[in-house]
Amino acid sequence: MFFKSDNSLGAPEEMFEALREVNQGPVTAYGDDPWTKQVTQRFSEVFERDVAVFMVTTGTAANVLGLSLFAPPWGGIVCHNESHIMADECNASEFYTGGAKLMGVAGDGGKMTPDGVIDALYYTAKGDPHSTQPAIVSLTQVTEAGTVYSLEEIRTLSEVCKAREMNLHMDGARFTNALVSLGCSAAEMTWKSGVDVLSFGATKNGAMAAEAVVLFDMDKADELMYRRMRAGHLVSKSRYLAAQLLAYLREDLWLRHAECANKMSARLAAGLRSSNKLRHAFDVDANMQFVIMKKAVHEQLIAGGAHYYTWPGRGPKGDQAKQDDEIIARLVCGFSTKKEDVDAFIELVGSVA
Amino acid sequence: MFFKSDNSLGAPEEMFEALREVNQGPVTAYGDDPWTKQVTQRFSEVFERDVAVFMVTTGTAANVLGLSLFAPPWGGIVCHNESHIMADECNASEFYTGGAKLMGVAGDGGKMTPDGVIDALYYTAKGDPHSTQPAIVSLTQVTEAGTVYSLEEIRTLSEVCKAREMNLHMDGARFTNALVSLGCSAAEMTWKSGVDVLSFGATKNGAMAAEAVVLFDMDKADELMYRRMRAGHLVSKSRYLAAQLLAYLREDLWLRHAECANKMSARLAAGLRSSNKLRHAFDVDANMQFVIMKKAVHEQLIAGGAHYYTWPGRGPKGDQAKQDDEIIARLVCGFSTKKEDVDAFIELVGSVA
Amino acid sequence: MFFKSDNSLGAPEEMFEALREVNQGPVTAYGDDPWTKQVTQRFSEVFERDVAVFMVTTGTAANVLGLSLFAPPWGGIVCHNESHIMADECNASEFYTGGAKLMGVAGDGGKMTPDGVIDALYYTAKGDPHSTQPAIVSLTQVTEAGTVYSLEEIRTLSEVCKAREMNLHMDGARFTNALVSLGCSAAEMTWKSGVDVLSFGATKNGAMAAEAVVLFDMDKADELMYRRMRAGHLVSKSRYLAAQLLAYLREDLWLRHAECANKMSARLAAGLRSSNKLRHAFDVDANMQFVIMKKAVHEQLIAGGAHYYTWPGRGPKGDQAKQDDEIIARLVCGFSTKKEDVDAFIELVGSVA
Amino acid sequence: MFFKSDNSLGAPEEMFEALREVNQGPVTAYGDDPWTKQVTQRFSEVFERDVAVFMVTTGTAANVLGLSLFAPPWGGIVCHNESHIMADECNASEFYTGGAKLMGVAGDGGKMTPDGVIDALYYTAKGDPHSTQPAIVSLTQVTEAGTVYSLEEIRTLSEVCKAREMNLHMDGARFTNALVSLGCSAAEMTWKSGVDVLSFGATKNGAMAAEAVVLFDMDKADELMYRRMRAGHLVSKSRYLAAQLLAYLREDLWLRHAECANKMSARLAAGLRSSNKLRHAFDVDANMQFVIMKKAVHEQLIAGGAHYYTWPGRGPKGDQAKQDDEIIARLVCGFSTKKEDVDAFIELVGSVA
Repeated sequence: MFFKSDNSLGAPEEMFEALREVNQGPVTAYGDDPWTKQVTQRFSEVFERDVAVFMVTTGTAANVLGLSLFAPPWGGIVCHNESHIMADECNASEFYTGGAKLMGVAGDGGKMTPDGVIDALYYTAKGDPHSTQPAIVSLTQVTEAGTVYSLEEIRTLSEVCKAREMNLHMDGARFTNALVSLGCSAAEMTWKSGVDVLSFGATKNGAMAAEAVVLFDMDKADELMYRRMRAGHLVSKSRYLAAQLLAYLREDLWLRHAECANKMSARLAAGLRSSNKLRHAFDVDANMQFVIMKKAVHEQLIAGGAHYYTWPGRGPKGDQAKQDDEIIARLVCGFSTKKEDVDAFIELVGSVA
Repeated sequence: MFFKSDNSLGAPEEMFEALREVNQGPVTAYGDDPWTKQVTQRFSEVFERDVAVFMVTTGTAANVLGLSLFAPPWGGIVCHNESHIMADECNASEFYTGGAKLMGVAGDGGKMTPDGVIDALYYTAKGDPHSTQPAIVSLTQVTEAGTVYSLEEIRTLSEVCKAREMNLHMDGARFTNALVSLGCSAAEMTWKSGVDVLSFGATKNGAMAAEAVVLFDMDKADELMYRRMRAGHLVSKSRYLAAQLLAYLREDLWLRHAECANKMSARLAAGLRSSNKLRHAFDVDANMQFVIMKKAVHEQLIAGGAHYYTWPGRGPKGDQAKQDDEIIARLVCGFSTKKEDVDAFIELVGSVA
Repeated sequence: MFFKSDNSLGAPEEMFEALREVNQGPVTAYGDDPWTKQVTQRFSEVFERDVAVFMVTTGTAANVLGLSLFAPPWGGIVCHNESHIMADECNASEFYTGGAKLMGVAGDGGKMTPDGVIDALYYTAKGDPHSTQPAIVSLTQVTEAGTVYSLEEIRTLSEVCKAREMNLHMDGARFTNALVSLGCSAAEMTWKSGVDVLSFGATKNGAMAAEAVVLFDMDKADELMYRRMRAGHLVSKSRYLAAQLLAYLREDLWLRHAECANKMSARLAAGLRSSNKLRHAFDVDANMQFVIMKKAVHEQLIAGGAHYYTWPGRGPKGDQAKQDDEIIARLVCGFSTKKEDVDAFIELVGSVA
Repeated sequence: MFFKSDNSLGAPEEMFEALREVNQGPVTAYGDDPWTKQVTQRFSEVFERDVAVFMVTTGTAANVLGLSLFAPPWGGIVCHNESHIMADECNASEFYTGGAKLMGVAGDGGKMTPDGVIDALYYTAKGDPHSTQPAIVSLTQVTEAGTVYSLEEIRTLSEVCKAREMNLHMDGARFTNALVSLGCSAAEMTWKSGVDVLSFGATKNGAMAAEAVVLFDMDKADELMYRRMRAGHLVSKSRYLAAQLLAYLREDLWLRHAECANKMSARLAAGLRSSNKLRHAFDVDANMQFVIMKKAVHEQLIAGGAHYYTWPGRGPKGDQAKQDDEIIARLVCGFSTKKEDVDAFIELVGSVA
């Protein structure tokens, strides 16, 4: 009953095969090898247009390298208060941008609304040297609350950006879980909805360590080449990164993994909803859910062998709000989460006093 | 009728005399001159203990150099949403600290409360590498809303800091106006109330360009010496900066200036309160006040020859809140504001339709 | 006949087995797993003292994270003009330190001498705020010229450092090749000779992507934890990094690999020395050698199927110096370089006109 | 007998008058005042074309703000080993550029040659992400050795830059002394010779604290507005900075000052040349000269009441080189250096044993 994180799961057989496959003979290092080139080609197919792809080994690197292309040191990056770049990356965005300001937005269910974004820009004044200059909005898809922005919601945020000459970034650490949830194409969820730069995550969904910055506008590709290198994020044996992403996108592995994770999460949600021991904090749109329960219940679940994180997030507002004697638990399903574990947990919840 | 800013006023006779006084013979540059040494001595008298003083020419430089001593690149700086470092310094704090995160606190009347500070730290986790590490709280005295923290309020914030091993910074751009308002000593308003580092402002209160970082703990003085130089803030002809600060602190010039400014502001407030054309947004504690008025009134005042800024700030909450057809005006009095101008403005307000 | 780089080679069977070995069940991410903990233990055994180990995926990351602990933004990092941090990392050291200055030293055979280091510090003045403050010396072992510092040479540089209160960093991208060349212990080549911080490289010698910062003084370990995270270098599925380093240090794999590479390099050197078509630029101490040859010879070698880089380095001085019609070729052997390839290349050289 | 620095001298009557002149009534702060606007106009006349002028209070600020416009964090700044940005600004260039690398050039008499610049770029490779990308060359006019680049020499360096798509910066801390020395126009010494950005110094030549970044290409003016503010270098009471520069450029004050300083320096040089107690290290082109003397002579001069700095610089090469028992003294004349002092020093030198 392990629901701590999708990062906690290992890697599927396909990854091992892919690593072996590229382990043949010497090739030029630092990306000048056939597999790295295939990656760009494969992403261009997946996104239905030419894209520039910069592989890295962590989601934080993908996020902050991408953002640093669009936010100058005097710029502002608007994001949700609970977003990874705001709350979980130890000021990496400030570091990589040379000092851009993160401007937090509150918002139910981990989502920013257009009004929230506009409100975050309240004290800014375009062209005034005293003021942070609004540069880019960063949304997380799947959000940190486990919800998924609809295409309409993304487009609306994109319009707010365009009206202010700002760009739009998507932190896609759980990109495929969102994609499967929406049932749309990768193109539709990104550039067709106004996204300028994407952090494409594969690690949480089955890779060992493989993420990528995807640029829909080639103009900044040269700059990113230098930015990645000076950050120490250009790996020498690039083929092993490439192998992971190629395997990930081959024969729908990425989609199958995400479907599995989302399905297990839905099964878990359904089972828990029928319990009166806890309630859901937010909609369960993908592979991550948040439930509110009495501390006493929580203690029994842990004692019963469940593994999950309690969440520092504030949870929902109003009637649904977390009470003082309650905790919020984050339950994440992954590509290899087993039905037995889900059912065992549901049963465990049912059995607590 | 000029109430735009105390920065808009010139300099008094004493400044000119002081500059002339030091204009004798050659002296060693970069601070190794007799007057610069006197400055440290004079500040130590004023603050009733040994202090380290680093003169600079702008308040922004003083703020961010001081903060950079206490906030590492992975640190968090807690400050009011409307504070100068947050809203008016174009990300200078992020630049000088190498990427610390500014964590905004809302708060009535420009003041942070202990609860507000604690709330801003909600998502931080000491010792967790993913999390911004809480480093320092920065309060502004006089606040951006024209109010003044009481000694008790400063001490309470200081206790919040101490309990979390954080430091406390005071942005004293209008230090003397606050001092005169509270009627306490410089020592009481700073280190005796828990302040670790102070931006001491003189420019708004009569100097031409003279500010200082004041350290109450000598340990970091060496580091600041390098930080100031590498930022291009060590002036070569240091004597002219020293002259301004020495004149400022001589024969109570600083206190007399602030008393005049505060008195004019009080006179203005009293006059405006008797009008039914506008209402005050916040308490008038020092030399700066905010009034809410109909846009139509505002237009007539401008047409009538008044000069002031309208304010992007949100103003008070609840019944007092600014309405859609209203603006907030900021009215600042300075050391040389004339009674005639104050009275003329009051009269002008009385005369509008 | 592939001698481009040790980075060009793949990975041995042991790496694949190691990855599989850790691919069992869910574990906590970000390093709180059993294998990551074993890594620290294993390194402590290898280095014969408690050490702190921070795994990363690139050598550049290891170098600049390590240096950033010892060089403040106003500090100076002394290194060879041809060192990786100076010439091949796109200003990563300046980025990670927040602006430290790299101070280049010329030196025969890729080595700095004590006099060279002292000379590089010529314009610095300790305690003078105008001056870069000498902070750390970085030596590369194996050097970029393929030579290896003797223990005596390392100790002498260390004494220069100690006398100036500077620290000593070792870029050990080819750490094991040097170790095998000297026939000493890892402890002797590092902290026993005065090294304070080490970049321990495994990728060039058989890992897929596994490097580590090794700290011999624990005091700075906390700081490095934040520095690594904010740089995006904390991988989530830490177990796969750990697996590589554990396999690397198991059953002397690291030593066996380096011995093979060095032996092949020696065989190559011996074969080439008997040719009159080229001459060696520097001593061949480990797995990398530089040979000077006529451009016409070079063209025939390439046409004959040889793969290697020509080198921008200046080569030796004096009688040995590279002539205008000559090039310098870098020939690198690795853990899997085959005798047949070495011999074929020697034969090819012998056959050119 | 004070020859320490032109920074050691005070300010002339004209500066005081100018400060008083602008001390009238309230004006909008931060540069939106009539005098600041006149500065741009006046500089455009002086430079015979539209220029953008950004006033600051230190030469270091002017240098590094200017450079930061042209050198990206992954860029290289080529400069003389003894230049102020390399040796005397505590890594300010690295700070402001976000990590550009300073690439030092040796060169006789403080001057870089085209070959020296090309040599400094030896290890760079355009378009290779591993390599620092050559961005800008910075020359100092008057050089740190007291020599002056001829227009031809500037143009030749400019051609090296153009051929490599690099820009050219001039550190003009002693701009006017060079101008007077060459007898050319400000336009000829700058943009007409290929200079893209200038640090225009006034402080050493009579201002209290007034320097400026002068841009000959307006495209980057907006960016510099933000860069200056976020560095804390936008002064609020801008009029006092403007007053100094307007006075400086009025009625040829700048030229008269520099003529005086250069003339006194020439008189000093002539007097010292007739002595056999010392010899000049470099040509005396402007207001600064370097003389080599026995330590015993030096001690007598100091005892006799002379004030000057000994120089860390290495001095000339070959027969002229400084010996072990010798020191190099830097003797600087300024706008207010008196003939009597010059003659007294010459006499003192003549009188030592």
